[in-house]
Amino acid sequence: MKPRGRRPGDEDTRARILNVAREQFAHSGYERASMRSIAGQAQVDPALITHYFGSKVGLLTEALRLPVDPAVVLESVGHSEPDHMGEALVRAMVGAWETPVVRQHFLGMLRTAASHEVAREVMQQTLHDSVQVAVARLVDDDADRRSALVMTQMAGLAFTRYFLQLPEVVALTPEELAASIGPTIQRYLVDPL
Amino acid sequence: MKPRGRRPGDEDTRARILNVAREQFAHSGYERASMRSIAGQAQVDPALITHYFGSKVGLLTEALRLPVDPAVVLESVGHSEPDHMGEALVRAMVGAWETPVVRQHFLGMLRTAASHEVAREVMQQTLHDSVQVAVARLVDDDADRRSALVMTQMAGLAFTRYFLQLPEVVALTPEELAASIGPTIQRYLVDPL
Repeated sequence: MKPRGRRPGDEDTRARILNVAREQFAHSGYERASMRSIAGQAQVDPALITHYFGSKVGLLTEALRLPVDPAVVLESVGHSEPDHMGEALVRAMVGAWETPVVRQHFLGMLRTAASHEVAREVMQQTLHDSVQVAVARLVDDDADRRSALVMTQMAGLAFTRYFLQLPEVVALTPEELAASIGPTIQRYLVDPL
Repeated sequence: MKPRGRRPGDEDTRARILNVAREQFAHSGYERASMRSIAGQAQVDPALITHYFGSKVGLLTEALRLPVDPAVVLESVGHSEPDHMGEALVRAMVGAWETPVVRQHFLGMLRTAASHEVAREVMQQTLHDSVQVAVARLVDDDADRRSALVMTQMAGLAFTRYFLQLPEVVALTPEELAASIGPTIQRYLVDPL
């Protein structure tokens, strides 16, 4: 998606703007974080943000873009034993979330989305276009319903473990999660509903 | 929990303060909503808030208290056929969430909790003391782990259906949710893990 003809320095500037935007959206909320305040902290002209991202919603959409491609995270699931796809999916997604960059992104996305309806809509669209579509590719039939059910379980695991930090959920190891929640995902992906 | 000797007018004032607090915490975030601004909008002296709730955290804790007692919502689950406890639990909780007052409370709690670490801790404690304890009462063994797993699924259903509003999750009827997610909860409550 990288436009051609961009100089190397452009990527650094773009990344710096996105880092500041993520921080301000999560901390101050979508409405309060202004293009001007983001430009100020990133030490660029506000017009450059418009040049790169088109609008505030465009900047938000880029800022919330997932740091890893769910299709790549879930690639191993498609190659796993048919009876163990559920376990493989839990293991792959928990593995991603346990890395600080992915976990921080999830928490920032959640804080931003909670602050404003527009931000919630962008989070919804991002998860739909990435996670839900990637999960739907793993199933043979009823893709919408199956991927929706997988989302209810996996979003809830992330929400209770990384955001709420319910002690009893935090206490479970990734392997225990794969063993306990894997069969749920297996049923949602494969079994008759 | 009502202290004795309180006059009827006190209850109205107390309820008015809590309504304003819920609104300001959800809209402005825990940190920005001040005792002074809440008192101003509720048309009371700030000292009265301290008198009723002790502190800002005390006010927050009361404001986030669940509008229905999970033990009451889940009472029917304990009386259902042992093979259908999972379905009964999904039906009872979705039934509660589909009422505007409970759904609005969940969304307000989430927005507040996303705004500040203290608010997140209060949400965690509230859900632990109420929902997790009520679910743990339904099971015979491994109560911590079973209730934790139930929380991951049910919190995720509420999160994706009422907050994110993923279209494919919103599209499912309460009966479809009971039929699809019920067996998951049944396994978490009863089956060997």
